[in-house]
Amino acid sequence: MKHSVCLLLGIYMMSASAESPIAIALHGGAGTIEREAMSAELEATYLGFLDHAITAGYEQLRRGESGLDVVVNVIQLMEDSPLFNAGHGAVYTWEGTHELDASIMHGAELEAGAVAGVSTVKSPIALARAVMERSPHVMLAGRGAEAFALEQSFEVMSPAYFATERRRKALEAFKANEQAGLQPEADHKFGTVGVVVMDATGNLVAGTSTGGMTGKRWGRIGDSPIIGAGTYADNRSCAVSATGHGEYFIRHTVARDICARIQFGGADLRAATEQVVKGELLDAGGEGGVIAVDKTGETVLIFNTSGMYRASINARGQKTVAIYGDE
Amino acid sequence: MKHSVCLLLGIYMMSASAESPIAIALHGGAGTIEREAMSAELEATYLGFLDHAITAGYEQLRRGESGLDVVVNVIQLMEDSPLFNAGHGAVYTWEGTHELDASIMHGAELEAGAVAGVSTVKSPIALARAVMERSPHVMLAGRGAEAFALEQSFEVMSPAYFATERRRKALEAFKANEQAGLQPEADHKFGTVGVVVMDATGNLVAGTSTGGMTGKRWGRIGDSPIIGAGTYADNRSCAVSATGHGEYFIRHTVARDICARIQFGGADLRAATEQVVKGELLDAGGEGGVIAVDKTGETVLIFNTSGMYRASINARGQKTVAIYGDE
Repeated sequence: MKHSVCLLLGIYMMSASAESPIAIALHGGAGTIEREAMSAELEATYLGFLDHAITAGYEQLRRGESGLDVVVNVIQLMEDSPLFNAGHGAVYTWEGTHELDASIMHGAELEAGAVAGVSTVKSPIALARAVMERSPHVMLAGRGAEAFALEQSFEVMSPAYFATERRRKALEAFKANEQAGLQPEADHKFGTVGVVVMDATGNLVAGTSTGGMTGKRWGRIGDSPIIGAGTYADNRSCAVSATGHGEYFIRHTVARDICARIQFGGADLRAATEQVVKGELLDAGGEGGVIAVDKTGETVLIFNTSGMYRASINARGQKTVAIYGDE
Repeated sequence: MKHSVCLLLGIYMMSASAESPIAIALHGGAGTIEREAMSAELEATYLGFLDHAITAGYEQLRRGESGLDVVVNVIQLMEDSPLFNAGHGAVYTWEGTHELDASIMHGAELEAGAVAGVSTVKSPIALARAVMERSPHVMLAGRGAEAFALEQSFEVMSPAYFATERRRKALEAFKANEQAGLQPEADHKFGTVGVVVMDATGNLVAGTSTGGMTGKRWGRIGDSPIIGAGTYADNRSCAVSATGHGEYFIRHTVARDICARIQFGGADLRAATEQVVKGELLDAGGEGGVIAVDKTGETVLIFNTSGMYRASINARGQKTVAIYGDE
């Protein structure tokens, strides 16, 4: 019973076969996610949520809503849920605060927006979109980004909104490990969330939102708000959102690298993502994964960890909802 | 007389012909730089400085010093000079402060470090190197980055150190333009500095340092501290440092894109940089330029603006020192 719902694969009911092809994929983080450590209830909760989120996004796409709207709305579902390390439920910094990062990119004109280190904004992905659409800049950080949010009439949240007992305990464990001289990295789960879509007009859009890494210090910025690292979209190749040990994803410009292998090297989406996630990154020791969609509506969900919360519906209507690596 | 020193091209004296090939290139920013608006004295000052800096870096490489040391030392020469928009002489933010960005990357293992929005650090490029070598992170921002600098015993500078009359006037002009409803961008010079080298061991290293754009707001982060946008180095392809309208350079992941065109597309350095700077960027309206060195020690200095402060000595000992686009 516990394992039987891990993989749902089937042909999604489509109301009209003549519709433009659409596709969507999402992740809720990759990392050390193992059956043995997961209760049946929690597993069912994750799978139910992933199924709900991917279905909601797909229905939006079917109604012809823009890729930008769908990426933001589905990421907001995950930001608002305590299950994921983004928005409510984000991990704690070393100082016991929350510093949230997000980015979004549209593949038609390569427009992009990103925020890093914001502490009072309920939906960092919505703020990233506002940076793209309503500022002359691509990336805003810290208190400056919050001043921009205020000017744009974003609601100011108190620190209590982001607080969860589960993440507070993770910080305590991180600090205890570090004080004991242990490698705290071993306990890292990368609960970043991300969505990629091909909408009915053929536009590719990618977005990513995260609380970063438990116990991060010194205003650390990971890959999620870095265009080219955690997020990239280009209608000529693909859209990618990444999750994992961000430092490696920055150094390998993972999202852009996958698109570049398609654009310049002639690789297909499967080969490009495998070369990066199971080749370059694995060789370097960079744990994590990506979701990606190409201009044909093909989707790939790939990771080099034991699991990744993930779901997709590709252009042929094939649906996947899964957690572990052997599914 | 005024124009006769603009281009110095010759075979650099080499003390031993059997030495390992080395190469270096630097820029001090691209933008609207025109002969008509430049005094003979200022032109000579720039050319003299560029010649001094490229020679100093080349001599270091000849002595077998590491690419990292050379990139940091030559960038520090420019950070310390009021001629360039980095360190002392950086442009002002909208609020009349200085927020400095820098990044560095080593092409052997793709190690990288970056800082964004620091206000008290004399040499942002040195801090970026410290992030790479002495933290588990790649990118630190704002007050957190300054806390890290303090832990690493970096000297704390007062705001007065970064202040220059020339840049204060540029902010006043920017604000006056904006209040008059004019496009302030027209006056932008992109005085970012950067250095790329191939050292005697064949390693490629790139670094970039900047004060950003005059009148920037909301904690804006440009391309200079973004690995893949303003800076990239990979021994398999090339090392790049960019200068220009940063938002475009982020969206086009300019530095990584050039290396990817070599690595995956089989382009040579000249073709790859031209496709990006005079193709993609120009088509999109993204003004600026790049310096680059490939694994053979070939150097390219290229821009789509009227000028770029630049210098290089390639693996064949050919030296260039120049400012304008017709040189």
